[in-house]
Amino acid sequence: MNFDMILAAAGRLKGHARQTPLLSSPFLDQLAGRRVLIKPECLQHTGSFKFRGAWSAISALDPALRRSGVIAFSSGNHAQGIAYAASQHDIPSVIVMPADAPSLKIANTRALGAEVVLYDRATEDRDEIGERLSAERGLTLVRPFDEPQVVAGQGTVGLEIAAEAEALGIREAEVLVPCGGGGLTSGIALACAERAPGLRVRPVEPEGFDDVARSLISGQIERNDRLSGNICDAIITPAPGQLTFPLMQSLCGPGLTVTEGQALSAVAQAFLRLKIVAEPGGAVALAAALDTAAALDSDTVIAVVSGGNVDPAMFTRALAML
Amino acid sequence: MNFDMILAAAGRLKGHARQTPLLSSPFLDQLAGRRVLIKPECLQHTGSFKFRGAWSAISALDPALRRSGVIAFSSGNHAQGIAYAASQHDIPSVIVMPADAPSLKIANTRALGAEVVLYDRATEDRDEIGERLSAERGLTLVRPFDEPQVVAGQGTVGLEIAAEAEALGIREAEVLVPCGGGGLTSGIALACAERAPGLRVRPVEPEGFDDVARSLISGQIERNDRLSGNICDAIITPAPGQLTFPLMQSLCGPGLTVTEGQALSAVAQAFLRLKIVAEPGGAVALAAALDTAAALDSDTVIAVVSGGNVDPAMFTRALAML
Repeated sequence: MNFDMILAAAGRLKGHARQTPLLSSPFLDQLAGRRVLIKPECLQHTGSFKFRGAWSAISALDPALRRSGVIAFSSGNHAQGIAYAASQHDIPSVIVMPADAPSLKIANTRALGAEVVLYDRATEDRDEIGERLSAERGLTLVRPFDEPQVVAGQGTVGLEIAAEAEALGIREAEVLVPCGGGGLTSGIALACAERAPGLRVRPVEPEGFDDVARSLISGQIERNDRLSGNICDAIITPAPGQLTFPLMQSLCGPGLTVTEGQALSAVAQAFLRLKIVAEPGGAVALAAALDTAAALDSDTVIAVVSGGNVDPAMFTRALAML
Repeated sequence: MNFDMILAAAGRLKGHARQTPLLSSPFLDQLAGRRVLIKPECLQHTGSFKFRGAWSAISALDPALRRSGVIAFSSGNHAQGIAYAASQHDIPSVIVMPADAPSLKIANTRALGAEVVLYDRATEDRDEIGERLSAERGLTLVRPFDEPQVVAGQGTVGLEIAAEAEALGIREAEVLVPCGGGGLTSGIALACAERAPGLRVRPVEPEGFDDVARSLISGQIERNDRLSGNICDAIITPAPGQLTFPLMQSLCGPGLTVTEGQALSAVAQAFLRLKIVAEPGGAVALAAALDTAAALDSDTVIAVVSGGNVDPAMFTRALAML
């Protein structure tokens, strides 16, 4: 895993992934007490940065292998990214989801062109199902973050941030990134280390689900006690990855955490001041920029909004805070 | 008023106005029955395209005159565009608003750097107040649409659309534009006529407030009977402008109209599929793309979303439609 893989991914993504603009608002600068720039990956295809990694991984496959198709385990943004990237490559995709996943997510993933295979979490083994399908059909598994070409794809966000910061004359800033397994965080960090070494990447997590922040402190992979019970579900994973943790350890930190209320308030501010739709998990970095001023030390903060796949009821809850 | 003024405005706006991306979603293509591309000017500074015209007009002023400041009559998007463009130029701005304007709009306009002067609609004459202030302080009036440099600024949206369409290999399309006084519509039409003559610009208005559509049919300026009582208030004006109507007459049409329900449904779809915040008036062109299929005849439709300054209560109403 190295910087050149990000450059190569950027070449493959050109004309396929969207180059998202850098947004700002004087109202947010005032709230934060510093300059805040926002990289809205919610505007990416399928509503999250996951499309970049999915496209990168699929486009990097050997053509003969690719033709057989890909498989992924996800009921969230990774599923939609894989489904759409596969359909745009005109290859089959199989998404393995728990049978109790929200019906809207199942329908959306199907509508984007994937075959959805449901399993019963109580009685069936997800990995066994995946291995059987892969063997039968020659499908290639695309992991959500612990996969070099996926990290390379997410790293293209960092290339864009580095170029945009340079165009604005910004040489030093903290780059706050919503962090689950660390694919986006480590990819951006790798790109910035090469292209904009004055940008320091810091992972942001929900309070109580701060496996990455704790891992960075202890120097070894720490796990979350729980995996549910937080509105930032899109970015909750058991632990940082084998590939992503060493990258984050050498390039990122320290981590930041925000409460559910802070995340929801950031969703509301993104609506009011930026006119973008953020999901709570996707808004944690913006929340950190707005609400954890004392933990930051740069004049300029760049916050990635990583996704916008939020249901109307949750968004209505956020709007009620205004 | 000519194309070269748009080019010159683009030069002055470079690095100040945001170049908005072109968005799309396979779900919207399917709803519309054709390819739909969206130009989201809600992502522009101050949440609407009005910032472009404001910046264009202010930056075109003679420096000595500019220093004295500008004045505008508006309680809406034009007010915010002028206030912010003036403050970024470090010059004073006065916005004259009715005293019964929503307090949030008054507060926002003040926060963006303007002095807000309130008047009583029942007992005071807005124009008299404006003329007195202009004379006393040497302020230059910037009209919301019937002003060549404002139209030139809005026309930069058309330059971007033409370049983006060319990059995508699109030679023929209908460009649907939310239309009030016609500044945005005529500016885009002027830019497309020169740069992308295969793009046909069509104004979109709320049903019952279709002064432009009727004017294009009758060949003379027609007026709206009413000026309120529709959720698309941001784009309701008494009649097309003296400057903008002849431009629209030679370059645009025919007009399209949408119902309030269609506009609100487009707000909901923009939330769900594009992750952008549109105001009802700003969403009428997207509504026309999605709901008036029989009135359209291109394989590709480009819909401008002109603004996103919608209050949480109205947005919640739109979300309830999903």
